[in-house]
Amino acid sequence: MATYEQAGVDLAAADEVVAQIANDVIATWSSDVVGGFGGFAAGITVPAGYDSPVLMMSTDGVGTKADVALRAGHLDGLGYDLVAMCVDDLAAVGAAPLAMTDYIAVDRLDVDRVASLVRSIATACATAGIALLGGETAEHPGVMPDNSFDLAGTALGIIEAGAEVTGAAIEPGNIVLGLESPNLRSNGFSFVRAHVLDRLELSDSLPGTGRSVAEVILEPSVIYAPAIRALVADLPVTGMAHITGGGIPGNLGRILPSHVDAHIASSAWIPAPVFAALAEVAHTEAAELYATFNMGIGFVVIVAPGDAATAVRTLEEQQVSVAAIGEVTTGSGAVFLD
Amino acid sequence: MATYEQAGVDLAAADEVVAQIANDVIATWSSDVVGGFGGFAAGITVPAGYDSPVLMMSTDGVGTKADVALRAGHLDGLGYDLVAMCVDDLAAVGAAPLAMTDYIAVDRLDVDRVASLVRSIATACATAGIALLGGETAEHPGVMPDNSFDLAGTALGIIEAGAEVTGAAIEPGNIVLGLESPNLRSNGFSFVRAHVLDRLELSDSLPGTGRSVAEVILEPSVIYAPAIRALVADLPVTGMAHITGGGIPGNLGRILPSHVDAHIASSAWIPAPVFAALAEVAHTEAAELYATFNMGIGFVVIVAPGDAATAVRTLEEQQVSVAAIGEVTTGSGAVFLD
Repeated sequence: MATYEQAGVDLAAADEVVAQIANDVIATWSSDVVGGFGGFAAGITVPAGYDSPVLMMSTDGVGTKADVALRAGHLDGLGYDLVAMCVDDLAAVGAAPLAMTDYIAVDRLDVDRVASLVRSIATACATAGIALLGGETAEHPGVMPDNSFDLAGTALGIIEAGAEVTGAAIEPGNIVLGLESPNLRSNGFSFVRAHVLDRLELSDSLPGTGRSVAEVILEPSVIYAPAIRALVADLPVTGMAHITGGGIPGNLGRILPSHVDAHIASSAWIPAPVFAALAEVAHTEAAELYATFNMGIGFVVIVAPGDAATAVRTLEEQQVSVAAIGEVTTGSGAVFLD
Repeated sequence: MATYEQAGVDLAAADEVVAQIANDVIATWSSDVVGGFGGFAAGITVPAGYDSPVLMMSTDGVGTKADVALRAGHLDGLGYDLVAMCVDDLAAVGAAPLAMTDYIAVDRLDVDRVASLVRSIATACATAGIALLGGETAEHPGVMPDNSFDLAGTALGIIEAGAEVTGAAIEPGNIVLGLESPNLRSNGFSFVRAHVLDRLELSDSLPGTGRSVAEVILEPSVIYAPAIRALVADLPVTGMAHITGGGIPGNLGRILPSHVDAHIASSAWIPAPVFAALAEVAHTEAAELYATFNMGIGFVVIVAPGDAATAVRTLEEQQVSVAAIGEVTTGSGAVFLD
């Protein structure tokens, strides 16, 4: 008799995953969460204090960092990458992240692996101060490569109507602040796979870092959202950008009004050693790296000049290193990397 | 020089997808949607009329129906499958779906294919009365099989605190109503691939249906959420279940309180021809089919006996075929298929 299990879908293993992760997921639930674990959907109460609340959603994935992490046998940081990718997009418009769901696609269900991924997501949600409301683990036998997985998620955020930070308020004279990223975050991994991992093993030392390739490139992403929440509560921010694929030019360019330019002084910060190592190993020109990687700046905040010192202080109180990396001039919506 | 494009990530193609889908996405936006297309996140205003609104999220995917649809060259229905999988989980707890985001993972970006998938999702969102707020298309060169894709999404819903339909109110004597599904919805496709597509080509005639295998198994899912919204506005519902993987036993079992049983009279409806064809082609026993597929009932509603006639009328006014398929007795949380 044909069965579903012969077809590669193991519902008993799925139940075991649910049992293993229940405590980790529920640990992210504040008293605002309603509904039980294992129902069709759990929920979170709209926080008090909003006159006209607007809900925002951000969907993203960790990309092929998942594949590299799998090869290195080191999945623990991926939860931070996933949560950072999703909630920092919400933070970039000024929204307060509330909750998250995850999506894990696998060839066949490896209970321990999925449980460890969800545990890592739950830990990162706790760091970000959000609830992990649910998720989906999908078995795709015979469609995905053996022993592979994909990791994506969606974050839900809230903001008062009219308080969205769109970049429209950016004016000539504004200061561009860069928030340090000590690592690649979760972008550029197809580049790394093609141009670094063809030359070096994951266990090799990465030049100039004194650490293995795996250890350096798999470092988990910083989650900026809590620091950005503190900042926007403190002073007016005219624009923000989460630096993901496309680098500073690609992402800062998305929020600049058409009557200004941003001039970034790349001498204002020293990219973390991983970026110098990429340039050396991949024989890549700087312009290509700046258009692909965050190059040490994972998030950009733009403020009026009178607010810059306070903004730096507030962010540093939140344990984020920050530097003034550029300024806004009259222009035509372009980003210049000087 | 090493470039990102050589690594298989084509940011220009990504921009072209965004340009192609912009109008379709924006067409799903009512006046409640704020924020522009292409920003870091768009939002939707919390609807008026809730005293203590609770937000719910449901993440799901179309599973390996994507692979079958790709092989058949017929992707148009997958948007309905994705939206149905997500919003009908929200409907099952009584929540009103508000918005959705999609996640498409591809090996390499085929602009026309991704645009057609998003167009199909946008059309289904319009049918469901929700906004497609955003999404992510992720390129995973060299990690996914050539020419493959995966499709998942997250729906956001809202409900008044305390109005959640959890099944806790189900009592002996309640009537179980079954909402017709004329097709497989988006579950059981690994079974179909393993036990049907090993014997029949997609272009073959599926026995007893007079139509090709591809045409029958790829029929898009019914989206029940609008009908369920009308129902819960009309009368008290004691329990609801969206019938996905695990069939009626697996899904109805999730909401039954431990002091009742549900007795389903499978003679109360005739499963659509596709299910008889599956049994015949896959040489599968009925019990395995009932534990894997929806078997013609895609959604179950439980009501007090005095409300059953009104519930049937309300659902049929919403163009959903419905039948009384069972009743609730004193018991121990079990589902019996008679």
